[in-house]
Amino acid sequence: MIEDKNQLRTPLSELGEFGLIDHLTNQFEIKHKSTVKGIGDDAAVLNIEEDRIVVTTDMLVEGVHFDLSYVPLKHLGYKAVVVNLSDVYAMNAAATQITVSIAVSNRFPLEALEELYSGIALASKIYNIDVIGGDTTSSTSGLLISVTAIGQVKPDDEVYRSGAKPNDLLVVTGDLGGAYMGLQILEREKEVFKVNPNNQPDLDAYTYIMERQLKPEARKDIVKLLKDLDVKPTAMIDVSDGLSSEILHICKASHVGCDLYEDKIPLDPQVISTCEEFDIDSTTVALNGGEDYELLMTISQEDFPKIKANPNLSVIGYITEESSGAHLVTRAETKIPLQAQGWKSFNN
Amino acid sequence: MIEDKNQLRTPLSELGEFGLIDHLTNQFEIKHKSTVKGIGDDAAVLNIEEDRIVVTTDMLVEGVHFDLSYVPLKHLGYKAVVVNLSDVYAMNAAATQITVSIAVSNRFPLEALEELYSGIALASKIYNIDVIGGDTTSSTSGLLISVTAIGQVKPDDEVYRSGAKPNDLLVVTGDLGGAYMGLQILEREKEVFKVNPNNQPDLDAYTYIMERQLKPEARKDIVKLLKDLDVKPTAMIDVSDGLSSEILHICKASHVGCDLYEDKIPLDPQVISTCEEFDIDSTTVALNGGEDYELLMTISQEDFPKIKANPNLSVIGYITEESSGAHLVTRAETKIPLQAQGWKSFNN
Repeated sequence: MIEDKNQLRTPLSELGEFGLIDHLTNQFEIKHKSTVKGIGDDAAVLNIEEDRIVVTTDMLVEGVHFDLSYVPLKHLGYKAVVVNLSDVYAMNAAATQITVSIAVSNRFPLEALEELYSGIALASKIYNIDVIGGDTTSSTSGLLISVTAIGQVKPDDEVYRSGAKPNDLLVVTGDLGGAYMGLQILEREKEVFKVNPNNQPDLDAYTYIMERQLKPEARKDIVKLLKDLDVKPTAMIDVSDGLSSEILHICKASHVGCDLYEDKIPLDPQVISTCEEFDIDSTTVALNGGEDYELLMTISQEDFPKIKANPNLSVIGYITEESSGAHLVTRAETKIPLQAQGWKSFNN
Repeated sequence: MIEDKNQLRTPLSELGEFGLIDHLTNQFEIKHKSTVKGIGDDAAVLNIEEDRIVVTTDMLVEGVHFDLSYVPLKHLGYKAVVVNLSDVYAMNAAATQITVSIAVSNRFPLEALEELYSGIALASKIYNIDVIGGDTTSSTSGLLISVTAIGQVKPDDEVYRSGAKPNDLLVVTGDLGGAYMGLQILEREKEVFKVNPNNQPDLDAYTYIMERQLKPEARKDIVKLLKDLDVKPTAMIDVSDGLSSEILHICKASHVGCDLYEDKIPLDPQVISTCEEFDIDSTTVALNGGEDYELLMTISQEDFPKIKANPNLSVIGYITEESSGAHLVTRAETKIPLQAQGWKSFNN
């Protein structure tokens, strides 16, 4: 679980900045004809003719978004790509290109960056993305990854946060809370390891939730599914900060309220059992846990027949007038105002 | 010169992440019709119809690329934008949009970020750029800014590093070495200040070179000038790492050699006098200093009449066959192989 410190260590200074960039990026091949020029000039050049272009960017910072004592670098590279693609899919767009910038301190040998880039390369392959540029620089402490993702969408196919209307259905993909509970397991095992480094933990009961934390996937499949079902959501957002925060973003942008039904929130059995083990309320975890990278959308009532049989999509509530506010309807049928908690990364 | 520590200090935690982003970005207005949707959704949406799209990204890291003991935050914000635009112009493209991501530690109050963003806003106004997105997160130490710039260029108007041909002229804009010598002055004054904080330095003799370091400008004007002169360079690159490094990039990408004439390298009188004061060779400074953000290009001989009278453009050498190698022809008419020194940011 903790990094093996006896690996091959080639200091970054041995390659120099340009040598390092060449070394790390020569594994990326160009797959899209829209990529006219990738890495290797002052800028990349794209040819995206009729489609709209979608641009999004996200940063992952060591000690804030990840802890290298239990996050393998390859997984980190993969995740850094996936969290950005998730934002592209949340626009109902196809992701096509990314740039990847990293700041890294001298304590990382070349082999560590190779691991990181192998994860970036794997995600690019699986999601069919061209890596078209980036920047590699040193940092005074720690590792930081900044990714910008570019996508394409046919004019008028893009879906904003702002299109939800009263009576629309609130729909979410997959299940929620897994990434947060996976993090709790990883944090607990880190503490156990500190006390007894020879302890071999049995983590079989947590494989799904640990994978949700360490190797999340973005819902590229949903963009295709919606097209196949001939459903255009009225609003969509990805679930990165927790369901509650994302619902409130849609409500604010669309000037609507909503009723979210606690008993409809999709939870994996591993999330439920781990919540019991930790004595945490599973609804709180789903609402505020974050990092699920599912898609939350609103769908017109008339599209309900098209989605109702689909196991990927759960109807969890409906949109109301703005004046009604945004509420959780509990199992006990009481209404509680939804509050955004999300990542409070600026708190001490 | 050193930051006033008694300013108004609003802790970042008071606003929360979304509040902070709203607060910092609400000053940005959309100027381009190609920006369909800017900040405020999962991604920005652009409509760039016939043009090619140019994408570039650069990161500035505290303690590596800047020292906040003498770099005002507003200047830093301005510079973070400009260094990216410079890469767009080096493609012969018009810069149109940027995303700005920052990672910042709790030691910065809101007012510091407001200063930083006021510089970003000023650069966006002066260069006519839309700020379409970004990410704001905390860091465990220091400040990091990652900017991605997007531009447009008509098909076949883009200029790569790879198009230089033997006998082409090597041409550079403006003058070189100023930013590096400005940095030497700032570093010297920092040391003086440490010894005697009440010393009021007379920096009038260094205003040009200090501005070259603290508030560089990107050569947007040159893209227009080249169009007006009806000159399309065969290759182009921006001078961020020093003339020597950039020439070698063009030679490598174009499979050519070159002869660079020492006596033709454009130097400002302040650079020459400051080099004398520091007992540094001004040619070495121009070759390896970096951060000048001028444009280096190669131009076909037949275009020489169009550029020869222009005060913005200096012919500094010519392209040779690859087998001849890349050389500096000194004032004493000896030939020395050019070597890339540039930023060795991974050295200890």
